[in-house]
Amino acid sequence: MKRSPLAPSAQAPVIAVDGVKLNTASTGIKYQNRDDLMLMSFDQPVAVAAVLTRSLTASAPVDWCRDVLSRGQTQAILCNAGNANAFTGAAGAVATEQCAKAVAEAGGYAPEHVMLASTGVIGEVLPDHLITPHIPALMAGTASTESKWLEAADAIRTTDTFAKAVSRQTTIGDTPITITGIAKGSGMIAPDMATMLGFIATDADLPAPVLQDCLSRFTEQSFNAITVDGDTSTSDTVIMVATAKASHPPVQSADDAILADFADALKSLMIELAVMIVRDGEGATKLIQINVSGADHDAAAKRIGLAIGNSPLVKTAIAGEDANWGRIVMAVGKSGEKADRDQLEIAIGGIPITRDGMCRPDYDESMVTEHMKGDDIRIDVHLNIGSGNATIWTCDLTQQYIIINADYRS
Amino acid sequence: MKRSPLAPSAQAPVIAVDGVKLNTASTGIKYQNRDDLMLMSFDQPVAVAAVLTRSLTASAPVDWCRDVLSRGQTQAILCNAGNANAFTGAAGAVATEQCAKAVAEAGGYAPEHVMLASTGVIGEVLPDHLITPHIPALMAGTASTESKWLEAADAIRTTDTFAKAVSRQTTIGDTPITITGIAKGSGMIAPDMATMLGFIATDADLPAPVLQDCLSRFTEQSFNAITVDGDTSTSDTVIMVATAKASHPPVQSADDAILADFADALKSLMIELAVMIVRDGEGATKLIQINVSGADHDAAAKRIGLAIGNSPLVKTAIAGEDANWGRIVMAVGKSGEKADRDQLEIAIGGIPITRDGMCRPDYDESMVTEHMKGDDIRIDVHLNIGSGNATIWTCDLTQQYIIINADYRS
Repeated sequence: MKRSPLAPSAQAPVIAVDGVKLNTASTGIKYQNRDDLMLMSFDQPVAVAAVLTRSLTASAPVDWCRDVLSRGQTQAILCNAGNANAFTGAAGAVATEQCAKAVAEAGGYAPEHVMLASTGVIGEVLPDHLITPHIPALMAGTASTESKWLEAADAIRTTDTFAKAVSRQTTIGDTPITITGIAKGSGMIAPDMATMLGFIATDADLPAPVLQDCLSRFTEQSFNAITVDGDTSTSDTVIMVATAKASHPPVQSADDAILADFADALKSLMIELAVMIVRDGEGATKLIQINVSGADHDAAAKRIGLAIGNSPLVKTAIAGEDANWGRIVMAVGKSGEKADRDQLEIAIGGIPITRDGMCRPDYDESMVTEHMKGDDIRIDVHLNIGSGNATIWTCDLTQQYIIINADYRS
Repeated sequence: MKRSPLAPSAQAPVIAVDGVKLNTASTGIKYQNRDDLMLMSFDQPVAVAAVLTRSLTASAPVDWCRDVLSRGQTQAILCNAGNANAFTGAAGAVATEQCAKAVAEAGGYAPEHVMLASTGVIGEVLPDHLITPHIPALMAGTASTESKWLEAADAIRTTDTFAKAVSRQTTIGDTPITITGIAKGSGMIAPDMATMLGFIATDADLPAPVLQDCLSRFTEQSFNAITVDGDTSTSDTVIMVATAKASHPPVQSADDAILADFADALKSLMIELAVMIVRDGEGATKLIQINVSGADHDAAAKRIGLAIGNSPLVKTAIAGEDANWGRIVMAVGKSGEKADRDQLEIAIGGIPITRDGMCRPDYDESMVTEHMKGDDIRIDVHLNIGSGNATIWTCDLTQQYIIINADYRS
């Protein structure tokens, strides 16, 4: 698969997180000549938080993770690419358990401390017999290095054309803290996280409820604010762990003032990872940022942004570099959210287009057309009726998307 | 534009409706060398019903029709193709009024008895000066013939590749009754009618409220049960008139027993027109019928059907003739409606695929693959949790859709 034209030109440095060891292996379940299995392990049980798909047809590993999560601790995360083990009934649940048991045995853990994630084809039972034989060597070879993080980001890919890894260095009090995350995803990406996986680790010492508050809050503004095709996966999973290797004053709440810098760093890391997923949107040639302001409330702003970001007509117009702003008007109208046609202000690339329910008399389409030729498209929609805001990221809809998805399984 | 491969092989006979005269003309506003203006007129004011877009950014002619509709009578309907006169502010409203006045003057009508419909590009004020000069000749040449109906169906097209006209003959009591309808639409087609226009006439003698009840009820099961791309237009309009030329016992209510045959005929005509719109879906190569049963209630069944019918991943898989039923599971899961993964039964082409939350052990994919090669695809989803039913029609999502929509304006 050709690297996305929107991929970052270079991989920024990734920083290993104290207390996190990783390793990868090749099972050959779907992909040949590349690693497709990733293990992340911890010396001792660590605080864990997660956001899991809201799909009512969730996969077997998502069911498993929900159970582990209820105890707030994990000691290992195993992830495979190419088979989602979703809609696989009782057999799928058994396959999941076999994997967890193999990891637990190799590491001397309790199986209920092992988290699992799988992505790929739906409806085929995970062939755990192709995974479990790799576990002892996988566990023995784990290491806490930058290159292991990058190999992990590579191994969890399915149709992704580039690996996604981001680090931040921050402080809690005076203590230096590292946060590093990896993610995968490029299709079936929609508001509720779609087939995306994200694994984020920090050496901070945070209780599971605080970690969960941070993760949930920023997921809304990052992984839940991106859309490639409006489809939501059965396997969406973001897991965050805190290894507590750093010593800093205790933190009781996500709103604790001492956590402000950490929270900013985490939010920015999550948005960067999320936007990377859009940059790898199947067939994407343009990254589209949609800023909605002046809506009735924040949730309304988000739904309006998603109505625009999920509109095939808006997305194909942008693919064609056509400044067809009328389709943005259409998408606002269909969102079902409160809007006043005659108050609606639309700008593309910062160039104002509408006023008083119509095109501005001084509107010069040539400037917008010029903006549309770039690969970073910005749409601003101001409703002028309230103070609700949201930002959504999406990509254009191209022929390549159709080619990729009409022929994914074969 | 090449005729859709899903177009009917031949035009079934269309029957003129007593009391309805039609004519068409060419304005050259957008299209050259074809008629793009349609006038339907009535000797005297007739009972009218309509279903108009729910878009909050509705077009100027939709605003105008809402006003006419409140009085329940019309004497003429003017429709142009190529310019939607949507999001055109005060200037658009003036253009609409000029057209209505020209029709009223030519026919000796009150302007508030003239209905208007426009489809095409959004955001450009309708050039009424290119329309009004045609009105006197257009009015003078109206006639009540089958060929005028077919010419009308042709003139209202935008990206449609074939004209859509359907007739039914039925009875009210012992009186023979005719119903004939024309429609247009092929993109921006979604649950709330999208850019579709429909004009239906009957010689029955029905009060406006009864007509409205019939139209609204069957719109839910026809024009509001189709989707091409999930986008909803600013211009959607279905208008129905009853010329009262036929003499039959008075009808007080849409539930009147004497109206049973008429209602069946109208419903079947509306579904046939609606499915024709899907058959002309932009880039479509397959017609997809999705039957949802056993849902919590009818509205839930419809939302599940639309989640499947609007999923780009389902639609591209079908374009690729790939029996990727896992994407149907995904779409059910993302619908947000009550579902039990382990009770879900999915069949494609009548071939059962799932049981107990997984693929059936005896499932033979080759039979489904064979079905996928045809151009009539049928998906049955049974939830097994209630008695809600719905049928949705959509088409596949192909490269041709992208080509058409990335370059519509130029």
